[in-house]
Amino acid sequence: MITICVDAMGGDESPELVCEGIAAALDADPELCVLVAGNAEYVEPFCAAHSRAKALVTTEVIEMGDHPAEAVRSKRDSSIVRGCAAVRVGEADGFFSAGSTGAIFAAAATNVGKIRGIKRPAIASTLPGMSGRETLLLDLGANADCRPEMIVQFAQMGAAYARTFMGVAEPRVALLSNGTEETKGSEQVLAFHAALAEAVPEFVGNCEGVDILAGTYDVIVCDGFTGNVALKSLEGTAKFLVSRIKAAANASLKTKIGAGLMVGALRSIAGELSGDVKGGAVLLGLKAPVFIGHGSTSVDAIKNGTLAVAAAVRGDLTGRIAETLAK
Amino acid sequence: MITICVDAMGGDESPELVCEGIAAALDADPELCVLVAGNAEYVEPFCAAHSRAKALVTTEVIEMGDHPAEAVRSKRDSSIVRGCAAVRVGEADGFFSAGSTGAIFAAAATNVGKIRGIKRPAIASTLPGMSGRETLLLDLGANADCRPEMIVQFAQMGAAYARTFMGVAEPRVALLSNGTEETKGSEQVLAFHAALAEAVPEFVGNCEGVDILAGTYDVIVCDGFTGNVALKSLEGTAKFLVSRIKAAANASLKTKIGAGLMVGALRSIAGELSGDVKGGAVLLGLKAPVFIGHGSTSVDAIKNGTLAVAAAVRGDLTGRIAETLAK
Repeated sequence: MITICVDAMGGDESPELVCEGIAAALDADPELCVLVAGNAEYVEPFCAAHSRAKALVTTEVIEMGDHPAEAVRSKRDSSIVRGCAAVRVGEADGFFSAGSTGAIFAAAATNVGKIRGIKRPAIASTLPGMSGRETLLLDLGANADCRPEMIVQFAQMGAAYARTFMGVAEPRVALLSNGTEETKGSEQVLAFHAALAEAVPEFVGNCEGVDILAGTYDVIVCDGFTGNVALKSLEGTAKFLVSRIKAAANASLKTKIGAGLMVGALRSIAGELSGDVKGGAVLLGLKAPVFIGHGSTSVDAIKNGTLAVAAAVRGDLTGRIAETLAK
Repeated sequence: MITICVDAMGGDESPELVCEGIAAALDADPELCVLVAGNAEYVEPFCAAHSRAKALVTTEVIEMGDHPAEAVRSKRDSSIVRGCAAVRVGEADGFFSAGSTGAIFAAAATNVGKIRGIKRPAIASTLPGMSGRETLLLDLGANADCRPEMIVQFAQMGAAYARTFMGVAEPRVALLSNGTEETKGSEQVLAFHAALAEAVPEFVGNCEGVDILAGTYDVIVCDGFTGNVALKSLEGTAKFLVSRIKAAANASLKTKIGAGLMVGALRSIAGELSGDVKGGAVLLGLKAPVFIGHGSTSVDAIKNGTLAVAAAVRGDLTGRIAETLAK
C-alpha cells in the first residue's frame, strides 16, 4: 500500500470534481490510499464514504491568482502547503495538485525538500510527438535564469525520467536553441551546449522549436524562461487553430456536416495538448514525486495524475534520479 | 514607376515558379518594374517576354543549406548578394527573396546598409490573431543576444511598421516574457522591460507565448533567440495538429467524408500560418525595404511578397522608421 496526498482544492473546477477523480483512481488501483487535503465540508464526507481515503483537513486555499511565494508563506494552513508537509513527515509518499504551478513549486521546494546535490528542482512535462514518441521538456518556468550546471542536472534528471517512465533505454537529450548547428544560440546557450557535451553522455546536440512536438528527442532541456515561452507558444497555437476550425465549421452547411462527422476526432486531438492524459507537469529533483495537473481539469485528469504519482513512487523516480546524479 | 528586385533563384520551388509569381505581380500593378536576379537561362527568356521586367544575370546560387555569412562572402555573384547591391546603387528600390533568411539578412545588412542610428536590423513577421487583428513579432533570429537599447529600437521600428502598414494609429507594444507581471522574466528581460518602460510610449507591458496568436498586441518584441524559439514552436504545433487531423480524417469512412467536406476550410487555416498570404518576413532597420518569402513558396507567395515590398517603398517605411528614431 502506498499513500498519495491529493489537493482537493486545486484546479479551476470544483472540489467535488476533484473528489470524483480521486474515487476513480481508488477504483482503478486497489493498492492505493489517498490523503485528501482540503476544506472539511468537501473532504470529510468523501473520506467517510471511501475506505482507502483519509482526510487532511485544511482551512485556507491558495488561489490561481495569488502570488505563489507570498501565498505559500502566508497561507500555512492551505491544502498545498499542508499536503507538501505531509510528504515531508512521511504521511504520504507523493503529492498531486491541479492548483497554481508556482505555488506548488514553492511549497514543494521548501517542504518536500530537494534531493541531495540538486541545485534547483525543475518543472517538466511530457508532450505528444508527431512520430508517436513522447518528449519530456524542461524547465518550464521554475528557473528563469540558469547556470550551465543547472542545465546539466536537468538533462540528467530528464534522462532518468525517460528511462524510468517513458520506457526508453537510451534516451536522446537535446538542447533547445535557435538552430541545430552547435554554433547556434545566445552566449548563455552556447555555454549550456559546452557543459552538456562534456558532462552528459545522452546529449545529442541542439534542436529547434519545431522539434518539440516532432517526437525526435526523448528529452529537451532549456532554461525556464525559454521553456515557458515555448510551451505557451505551443498552447496559444493550439487555441488559435481550434478557434479557426470552429469558425470554419460554422461557415456553411457543408462544413457543419463535415465538422459533425469529425467532431470526436477533433476533440481527441485538442485533448492531446490539453494535459488531461498525462495529468500535467512533474517536479524533478525533489525527495518525493510531486505532479501538477492542468488548471482546467477533469475527472480523468485527476485520476490519471494521481495514478501517475503512484507509479512514480513505485518506480522509485527519486532513487533513480539520485543514482544518476551520483555517477 | 518603382523597381523591385526579385530573386528568381530563392525558395524551395523552381525559378520558373518564382517567375510566374513575378508575372502575376506585374499584371496586378501596372506601375511596377521588376529587376529579376538569377541565372541567365531563367531570367533572360522571362524578361524578353515581359516589358516591365529587366534581367540581372548572376552565376551563383546561395542554397538553403549554405552557411549564411560564409555564402554571402564567397558567392559574390549570387542573386542575393547582387540583388542587395542593386538596391544600394539605386537600380532597385527594394528587394524580395524567398531564399535563406540568414543569407538575405547578412547580404542586406552589408550591402543595403542600416538606417543611421540603428544598432542592428531585425527580422519581423506579421502573424494572424484569434481576435482578427494581426501581431508583428520581432526579432525572429537575427540577433540571438540583445542589449536593452536594441530591444528599444525593435519596439520603435515595430511601432512605425504598425502605423504605416497595419493601419494602427496607436500601436500597443508588448515584451515577450514568462509571465505578464512586470516582475517576471530573466535578468536580461527585466532589463529590457525597464528600458522599454522608460523610452517607448507605446509599450504596455509583458505578454506571454500564448498571446502571440491572440491578436491582443500590435507588436511583440523579444531577443532573436527567444523569437526564433517561439516562432518555430508555433510552426511545429501547426505541423503537429495538421498531421493529427490528416490521420484522424483517414481513420474511418465517417471521418473521411467529414474531412472531405471540410478540406477547403482546413487548407485555408493551415495556409494562414504558412506565410503565403503576407509573403513571410520583413527586415527592419535597413535603408530600403527587404522582404523574405517563406521557403516552401507558391506563385501567390511570390506575387504578394513582391507587391508588399512595392507597398513598403511607396509608404516610405524606411523614412517612417528614421523619423521615429529621430524623435
